Amino acid sequence: MTRDWRTNFDCSLYLVTDSGMCSAMGLERLVTEAVAGGVTMVQLREKHASTREFLDKARALQAILQPQGVPLLINDRVDIALAVNAAGVHLGQSDMPCHVARQLLGPGAIIGLTVDTDEQAVATESMDADYLGVGPVFETSTKPDHSPVLGVDGFTRRRALSSRPCVAIGSVRAEHAHTLLDAGADGLAVVSALCAAGDPRQAARELREAVESFRG
Amino acid sequence: MTRDWRTNFDCSLYLVTDSGMCSAMGLERLVTEAVAGGVTMVQLREKHASTREFLDKARALQAILQPQGVPLLINDRVDIALAVNAAGVHLGQSDMPCHVARQLLGPGAIIGLTVDTDEQAVATESMDADYLGVGPVFETSTKPDHSPVLGVDGFTRRRALSSRPCVAIGSVRAEHAHTLLDAGADGLAVVSALCAAGDPRQAARELREAVESFRG
Repeated sequence: MTRDWRTNFDCSLYLVTDSGMCSAMGLERLVTEAVAGGVTMVQLREKHASTREFLDKARALQAILQPQGVPLLINDRVDIALAVNAAGVHLGQSDMPCHVARQLLGPGAIIGLTVDTDEQAVATESMDADYLGVGPVFETSTKPDHSPVLGVDGFTRRRALSSRPCVAIGSVRAEHAHTLLDAGADGLAVVSALCAAGDPRQAARELREAVESFRG
Repeated sequence: MTRDWRTNFDCSLYLVTDSGMCSAMGLERLVTEAVAGGVTMVQLREKHASTREFLDKARALQAILQPQGVPLLINDRVDIALAVNAAGVHLGQSDMPCHVARQLLGPGAIIGLTVDTDEQAVATESMDADYLGVGPVFETSTKPDHSPVLGVDGFTRRRALSSRPCVAIGSVRAEHAHTLLDAGADGLAVVSALCAAGDPRQAARELREAVESFRG
């Protein structure tokens, strides 16, 4: 992992994949369309795949994303990230600790962390992490084991506890963009808004435009 | 992974852990006792643990095994192996391909492969693997998704297809040692014979003695 991905990454519109949700369209087409519509970063998240299936999907996405300079992050699995030379990993609280992942991935990798509580948000201040995933902002069915819904007020409070870039996640739609960016979000992380969209390119375009119009 | 583990490893008595089966005794005590009884190699196999739980167990076993020079192999997870500086990995057919794992782990790591068919045994000849796990020799309940039982004749046939060291696995007990070694096994891989033993030190001693007495 020689390239420095972390200095200038753009988490404005962050697609987190759900293979089950996009099975009709297929993961590769979903990602291709979503990036064409304006997605700036992609996380491959596979909770039930074997290592080999996960690796094959990561390779396929890397072949799409690398030529476009869009960072691919791997959920949980540092070995998959290393094998496909991904931009980095996204780690939950029961995944590898941040400093261990950093040691394996090197100084140029992007490492994102999910924070499930205010205490965890504070704790990440001393970690070598590049962004935080903060949520679920709204009620969501894509992560059945999620922590309590934050709402916009809860997001605002938790976001203020961290100096890291924060992406809002959890049933985020284009109509929430201004509210969440106003609450301090640096980007929107979306699952179903793109994975379940009939036209993910158009859906991504609307989301990205909502973000850009806030920034003026 | 700087140390060269693969040149001189001893697979005579290979403990493959099952955390559920040894929950009363605890994994660390099991491994300590089994190694005191004569286990020469240990594989940490965790099919339901989170990455962090897996890592914590790997660290605990490495702290026991490293001072004794007993190689610790990690089932499936190359990232865990890298994080704890394990001796290597054991890979099934749906895990990372051998050459990818070799690239990540380096030339000194031990890489073992499970072969489920004769064709796979032949195919490993062109892979940079250090040993094969061949089984299940007998009916087993510790790996519910296992391939058809080989029996001793099947083991003899499959073992002869490979020039690599082969360990026999699948309900292997001390009383099978001479038959299996005579059939070409280079070692015995055991799960329940040690993980479910009341006295794993004594059980390991009997298994090891059975191996050594064959070798005369």
